[in-house]
Amino acid sequence: MTGKAAIVGGGVIGGGWAARFLLMGWDVAVFDPDPEAARKIGEVIDGARRALPMLYDTALPAEGRLTMASAFSEAVEGADWVQESVPERLALKHTILQRMQATARDDAIIGSSTSGFMPTELQASTQRPGQVIVAHPFNPVYLLPLVEVVGSSANTPEMLDRAEDILRSIGMAPLRVRAEVPAHIADRLLESVWREALWLVKDGVATTEEIDDAIRMGFGLRWAQMGLFETYRIAGGEAGMRHFLGQFGPALEWPWSKLTDVPAMDDALIEKISQQSDAQAGAMSVRALERLRDDNLIAILRALRQRGAAAGKVLTDHEQSLKGASVTDWPLLTVRRIVPVDWTDYNGHMNEGRYGQVFSDAADAVLDLIGAGPAYVDAGHSFFTVETSVSYKAECHAGEAIAVRTQVRQAGGKKLGLYHEMWRGEDLAATCTQLLIHVDLETRKSCDPLPEVAEAMARLPRD
Amino acid sequence: MTGKAAIVGGGVIGGGWAARFLLMGWDVAVFDPDPEAARKIGEVIDGARRALPMLYDTALPAEGRLTMASAFSEAVEGADWVQESVPERLALKHTILQRMQATARDDAIIGSSTSGFMPTELQASTQRPGQVIVAHPFNPVYLLPLVEVVGSSANTPEMLDRAEDILRSIGMAPLRVRAEVPAHIADRLLESVWREALWLVKDGVATTEEIDDAIRMGFGLRWAQMGLFETYRIAGGEAGMRHFLGQFGPALEWPWSKLTDVPAMDDALIEKISQQSDAQAGAMSVRALERLRDDNLIAILRALRQRGAAAGKVLTDHEQSLKGASVTDWPLLTVRRIVPVDWTDYNGHMNEGRYGQVFSDAADAVLDLIGAGPAYVDAGHSFFTVETSVSYKAECHAGEAIAVRTQVRQAGGKKLGLYHEMWRGEDLAATCTQLLIHVDLETRKSCDPLPEVAEAMARLPRD
Repeated sequence: MTGKAAIVGGGVIGGGWAARFLLMGWDVAVFDPDPEAARKIGEVIDGARRALPMLYDTALPAEGRLTMASAFSEAVEGADWVQESVPERLALKHTILQRMQATARDDAIIGSSTSGFMPTELQASTQRPGQVIVAHPFNPVYLLPLVEVVGSSANTPEMLDRAEDILRSIGMAPLRVRAEVPAHIADRLLESVWREALWLVKDGVATTEEIDDAIRMGFGLRWAQMGLFETYRIAGGEAGMRHFLGQFGPALEWPWSKLTDVPAMDDALIEKISQQSDAQAGAMSVRALERLRDDNLIAILRALRQRGAAAGKVLTDHEQSLKGASVTDWPLLTVRRIVPVDWTDYNGHMNEGRYGQVFSDAADAVLDLIGAGPAYVDAGHSFFTVETSVSYKAECHAGEAIAVRTQVRQAGGKKLGLYHEMWRGEDLAATCTQLLIHVDLETRKSCDPLPEVAEAMARLPRD
Repeated sequence: MTGKAAIVGGGVIGGGWAARFLLMGWDVAVFDPDPEAARKIGEVIDGARRALPMLYDTALPAEGRLTMASAFSEAVEGADWVQESVPERLALKHTILQRMQATARDDAIIGSSTSGFMPTELQASTQRPGQVIVAHPFNPVYLLPLVEVVGSSANTPEMLDRAEDILRSIGMAPLRVRAEVPAHIADRLLESVWREALWLVKDGVATTEEIDDAIRMGFGLRWAQMGLFETYRIAGGEAGMRHFLGQFGPALEWPWSKLTDVPAMDDALIEKISQQSDAQAGAMSVRALERLRDDNLIAILRALRQRGAAAGKVLTDHEQSLKGASVTDWPLLTVRRIVPVDWTDYNGHMNEGRYGQVFSDAADAVLDLIGAGPAYVDAGHSFFTVETSVSYKAECHAGEAIAVRTQVRQAGGKKLGLYHEMWRGEDLAATCTQLLIHVDLETRKSCDPLPEVAEAMARLPRD
């Protein structure tokens, strides 16, 4: 499903909308009177062009056509979706919505990116209220799936369904908000944290960086995969959500927060939350949820670790302190590890690509041993693998311990030839022969190793 | 650094502490009078034994010794670290701390897992206040790195440094809290969201599941890697934090939240936050931060995608709708994709293991074509790769488009032999020969394909 999207207001949010539609094959016309608009929106779209396609394991559709409209009507004319992302002033939004309806097709969907206004407020001065909804996205719009879809009694369910279908077709996750309130759902939660955080800074309890660390090293990781209630359901343990609410309900009255107006945790509210939480968890036991949470956290933490970012940096730093001298054993014990959950595929076993990664890690251990580790790479030389042959002997599963023993088959001049055996306990899981070539990282061409590495290669024991 | 840890209180938090110390090589003695304690803590530790080692790319140290102490003093005696994780009642905590100090070594660190009490409150009735600190972890303690470390004027900086060193040695990220306040930092933020969420449920604006989706499909993903302030710094765009605060400051006064006591966003507060945010960002421009954020989000989303969880499920569902019929071209175009950021290694190029994954995906496309896709796998048969040989011809980098063309070399009986060429634009990046064998997923042994797959194999064009 593609069509034409009109984007009015080309800031970070409007630009993100434009990018998402465009990269999913829609034609996009942007209107923004700012003389800098084309440059600014171009930068957002360039960021999205770099980032969004990397999310997918398949090529995206061909990009649609991007136009910077010189007139308002030119942008809106013939559009299937018209999105308003102008500053949060109700009078301004009314003017824009009226101008949109003067040109827009009757069956076009007009979405507002408003963080705060309710659809009824936005629709108040429009000709065709039924055409206008709130479609509130989150920055960066081209990566985060959430979009809050809010209608009023003026909108038909069919129209809201159609809006959701379009949003899903550009890769978003529409969340239909069942009641109009200022700031919908997510921004109410964000606002409450924001206020509390402002107090913490103002009172000198924490700096902005400490508050960010308090989030991203802890509950931020939980929230990336489960949110608030499902996480607390697990925290309640075997006794479940009712137990959790009973236990922590009284703490609500404590003066922990600067903002102490709280709903009474009476039986009715306990029952309501518990029933909703039961429905949400479905047939999953707390143990099953716990395992799901742990596996998701492992995958997220390992993703951050590969990036050397946030909690992933904690992990790499810690791992450095754990590394033993095991690689000096003979035959070289080059890898000792557990198969993580993010390495398995639809066959329920470790994917063949991950065998390749294990053998790559094994080669890295040999490179460390001959002084061609990270410092050598930083100084401008490395070894690149040019050939590998792998023979797969046994399946490996998440949680299993594996080890690699490595023999040196060739070590002279530019060439390093390795033979690896990967063991899963007593079972030979795979063998690999690997040829590496020494390269200059500046020219990316092969060359002889520096003398100290050449000497270390010559000293390597052969079998 | 290892030693003996005494864990008093064996619930979800105490069990998590026990697991973390134990799996990092410490001896652990647990005291909990609950007759079910051994079973409960055993379950937490089993969960940790499964999960924690999967985080690391290297083997963890040998596990320490776990004892369920029959007497309080037996647990605490000789311990280097004593951790209190009993229910949140101050009088109870006082009793426990006093009993701990009756046996604990003078130089032992006594940490309290309290969510709410300040160190001064805990120390009030103890013999040696300088020995007692708050060390507040987050569930699951064995996976999340954050631990808030809070001392009072009774604690020496050296003692708090020593506590941090020990916590880092078991893989945690200690956050030294600079001022005592009830609930420290993170739980004040959590409490504010919790209260707002309770109002949303009570008022019928959203269900627990909708609130969780509003978090995990949107800002939860941001918070897993950057937290609140750095994210908003980016949202402010080129104009920076001062601009953001100026723009959104007034919204603080809006009745978005049920809880409207707000600090005045005066010049002093704007200046304080802006300066802290500048210091936090260091020399990084907003563009650089934006790119960092995007790359982290891609890595997190792709991690969730591999798990089929939360926002990752949105991605796989959407990708299904994008898949074209390109695989029917000849020679088979089996992969068309972009190299994602999480596929590169220290050489700045795509790791050899990821070439293996691309060729694995290419084989999957052929399997789809012969009717041996996901439904066939669900019904109990599959193909396993038994041999691959890869020759690496050119480097690939994040963001580059790659494609694989595949030829069928052998297709009969149990065997499927493929030859793949991976192209990066006009350059041949790698070649791969691959032998797959048809298997019964019940016995995990080779067997002939079912008739319809055998027929489809026979119809495959050969070069």
